Amino acid sequence: MPKFNFISWLLNIGILLLSSALYAQVDPLPSWNEGPTKNAILQFVQTTTDKNSTHFVAPKERIATFDQDGTLWVEQPQYPQWYFTIDHLKSLATTPFSKFNKLLKALFKKVEILGQVPKQELTAILGLIDTGISVDSFRQSVNTWLNTAEHPDFHKPFTSLIYQPMLELIELLQANEFKTYIVSGGGQEFIRVYAEEVYQIPPEQIIGSAIQVKYENEDGRIVFKRTPDILFVNDKEGKAESIHLMIGRHPIAAFGNSDGDRQMLELTWANKGFALLVHHDDEKREYAYDKDSSVGKLTDAFMQEAKERSYTIVSIKNDWKILFPWQK
Amino acid sequence: MPKFNFISWLLNIGILLLSSALYAQVDPLPSWNEGPTKNAILQFVQTTTDKNSTHFVAPKERIATFDQDGTLWVEQPQYPQWYFTIDHLKSLATTPFSKFNKLLKALFKKVEILGQVPKQELTAILGLIDTGISVDSFRQSVNTWLNTAEHPDFHKPFTSLIYQPMLELIELLQANEFKTYIVSGGGQEFIRVYAEEVYQIPPEQIIGSAIQVKYENEDGRIVFKRTPDILFVNDKEGKAESIHLMIGRHPIAAFGNSDGDRQMLELTWANKGFALLVHHDDEKREYAYDKDSSVGKLTDAFMQEAKERSYTIVSIKNDWKILFPWQK
Repeated sequence: MPKFNFISWLLNIGILLLSSALYAQVDPLPSWNEGPTKNAILQFVQTTTDKNSTHFVAPKERIATFDQDGTLWVEQPQYPQWYFTIDHLKSLATTPFSKFNKLLKALFKKVEILGQVPKQELTAILGLIDTGISVDSFRQSVNTWLNTAEHPDFHKPFTSLIYQPMLELIELLQANEFKTYIVSGGGQEFIRVYAEEVYQIPPEQIIGSAIQVKYENEDGRIVFKRTPDILFVNDKEGKAESIHLMIGRHPIAAFGNSDGDRQMLELTWANKGFALLVHHDDEKREYAYDKDSSVGKLTDAFMQEAKERSYTIVSIKNDWKILFPWQK
Repeated sequence: MPKFNFISWLLNIGILLLSSALYAQVDPLPSWNEGPTKNAILQFVQTTTDKNSTHFVAPKERIATFDQDGTLWVEQPQYPQWYFTIDHLKSLATTPFSKFNKLLKALFKKVEILGQVPKQELTAILGLIDTGISVDSFRQSVNTWLNTAEHPDFHKPFTSLIYQPMLELIELLQANEFKTYIVSGGGQEFIRVYAEEVYQIPPEQIIGSAIQVKYENEDGRIVFKRTPDILFVNDKEGKAESIHLMIGRHPIAAFGNSDGDRQMLELTWANKGFALLVHHDDEKREYAYDKDSSVGKLTDAFMQEAKERSYTIVSIKNDWKILFPWQK
């Protein structure tokens, strides 16, 4: 039996206390439970930013791309932009003298049908309705809506339903000189309205589905008018293609949650980057869904691929201590 | 008659010497002659970056956009990309087994006609020829060409024909936390090959005419294949529209030299930004051209507008001490 060594014991305790104190002080991901997922993230950041690591990546190459719906904020029971579209259509329908209100009133008699229209078609409808509107007016509509609309289940503003663990992850990457992008199937212009305030991500780092705008000089005031022409749909292969267009480098980290993100994650993985997939498995605190959901569908094929390629898979149930900032 | 005050004289001389010494030490634009143009630039930078100035602009809003051909490098007697296109077509034509060489050889019998084809059409031809080529292969072609091709008059590599005064200006803005973009009618992919090395401008800050690429997984290797579809032509209104797409904010400074830049400068001016127009008036050291040139045409109407709106107009002849880095 080894003799009890008081000095050594004291030292060990001291080191233990010191390191936990330090850890508590610096843990950049407090809303993540300890475990392999959190470790994988921390290790990725550590090895890509440590000059002595063989995995070191120069700051200018540190590109991280985030899907938005279902990855950064709640996308159930419908994408937030879907609610905006519906509300916006409704407000247009009740605007006196709106050139659309006859059409829209007729449409809203069948609102239960409208509720089943896929997002992409709805966005196209909106694009059509908003043709000729300036980008500034559109942004104003979104802003007004964000300040008043509430999520149907959580009864909170949509921007309160950003995932706190993902916010910490974005912040960690930004603090380590990563350039963080949002790469969303949603409308680029819609996201730009709140992304800078909510994610600290500036408009030039927002990639979303985009419509063609038209430059106009209205008596010296320059406006961009929305047209009905879709420039690109930022989904699936489209996400990777617009990363090429807008960034021109491969991401070294990509974050998604559904089949729409499959190519973005593949692009990153193929370049030996860090690919992370959020799995919504927490029926109690949020929603549990994957292959059978029309919103944020995550097929078995993609899940299987993610496992085979050792993507980091987040179980919301197990990996996240809390989901939202207001639960702190 | 005031009495001569030796102390005061000494102090004045001292201040004079000190300030010129300091000035010599810090002059960020040594290739610019002293005068109103240089002063306008320095004043713009000073007032937008000084927190106590009423013109102060927060770093995140400091967007500066530069046209390339004729603004950052020599565009006469033909755009550099035009030479690349011709040389690239020629090399494809002589490649054994090229599926295009019959077509191209026939085309080159009429090379004197080809020489008069406008850049945009030539780019379209090239796009067609390079359909199915990966972006990486295309970048490699450009790179190889840049390392071997010479300008027909200067007998120097094209990247040696970047204007030294403009390089200093880019560097000055970058040092003052401006985000510098290239916004060129030329091909986005072409410019990305050398812009980071030559201008310290990363690929995500290159806006150019863009073709649609196609995402492909070739046995685990991800490639972007070039298609013949043009996504947008980055010229005139198109420049302002892609600034909206790619940046989403108005520039506070814009630099151009021809009618293709008119809307970009207007957009900037309309938002009380700094608009600068380079006028090629130096036949001796470069080329003198404006309204009668097919390359880099600067019409009287635009020049008139620039004067009425007090854009800063650079006379190469009067404002630039030297033109190129190798003249230092």
